[in-house]
Amino acid sequence: MSLIEPLEAVIEEFSKFPGIGKKTAYRLAIYLLRRPAKDVTRFTDSVTSLKQKVTFCKRCFNLAEGDYCMVCSGLKRDGSKICVVEDITDVMAIERTHEYDGLYHVLGGVLSPLSGVGPEDIKLYELFNRIREENVKEVILALNPDTEGDTTSMYIVRNLKETDVRISRIARGIPIGGDIEFSDDATISRALKGRITISNE
Amino acid sequence: MSLIEPLEAVIEEFSKFPGIGKKTAYRLAIYLLRRPAKDVTRFTDSVTSLKQKVTFCKRCFNLAEGDYCMVCSGLKRDGSKICVVEDITDVMAIERTHEYDGLYHVLGGVLSPLSGVGPEDIKLYELFNRIREENVKEVILALNPDTEGDTTSMYIVRNLKETDVRISRIARGIPIGGDIEFSDDATISRALKGRITISNE
Repeated sequence: MSLIEPLEAVIEEFSKFPGIGKKTAYRLAIYLLRRPAKDVTRFTDSVTSLKQKVTFCKRCFNLAEGDYCMVCSGLKRDGSKICVVEDITDVMAIERTHEYDGLYHVLGGVLSPLSGVGPEDIKLYELFNRIREENVKEVILALNPDTEGDTTSMYIVRNLKETDVRISRIARGIPIGGDIEFSDDATISRALKGRITISNE
Repeated sequence: MSLIEPLEAVIEEFSKFPGIGKKTAYRLAIYLLRRPAKDVTRFTDSVTSLKQKVTFCKRCFNLAEGDYCMVCSGLKRDGSKICVVEDITDVMAIERTHEYDGLYHVLGGVLSPLSGVGPEDIKLYELFNRIREENVKEVILALNPDTEGDTTSMYIVRNLKETDVRISRIARGIPIGGDIEFSDDATISRALKGRITISNE
């Protein structure tokens, strides 16, 4: 006995989601099958509405409910600073601090030759265009401190060599509340290299 | 900056799925957001069609595309035997062997006092009704050999004590291709207790 066709179709669709295998896809499909019809309709309606109402900002690729995101349409934002992040969640994390008043640029990924992600797969050219066309004075690289984040940062630095834009990178070191004793060597080494003189402050 | 409402709604919906936490729900929602509109429509259509076309068999609660499942509407099935299983996948696993010619009864779960699953939450009363109303001669318990499966089996046995239905349980022992040396004690003990005389066969 093979599976019923409409069930197979849903399993097939769920299997395409990131991190969802055949078994999980089956479990999700059966879950939907067991829910009341109105719950399933609410689910599909929410997905349809997501796709209809939520877009990506035309300028920085953050989430938007129109052409531009809340940050890009904010009046008091400093357009001379662009903070480059990997994902929308990074924007949210930085916004939560209320410390940053500039704009963002969401790459939607990082360079990863092993996974086949090249410069054309993420919003790198769009970043370089913005820097050319907007009055950008500083680019702040806020990518994750791992190999792929570093590779992407290096790629950006290399491509902006000819411009007079200031490039900075967010500090790496021991996290607040962290413990030097239990920090890994690379983090301690980075924290030492990135030390800041305080005696004359 | 909080999340945009339509995105929050989808994350909320995905979070209700079994085994899906907030972070995964977010990832799934963003995945949908990045897909072309036609892919998302195909996804929601497949879910709608699943819910419209696939039902549960009115008799055994196996998957069906009408009132009754393929097994229950099969002509050459022996209606005097009911094999009790936990889930639809168990039906599929047993059907794959082509060894069983009786009917099924899908409980849709097992008794689990710790998770709050009582007799009324699974199709137990429906099983007892079938045994009363149909001409059932044997009930084969094919629940998983774990605490919850054993509890459920015991519950069924106790409730059928007054009937003259024969109750059997699928054998437990060393799996085919398995290794006695590396089998756990409980399995070896079960295999010994369930030994079958072969000298006079």
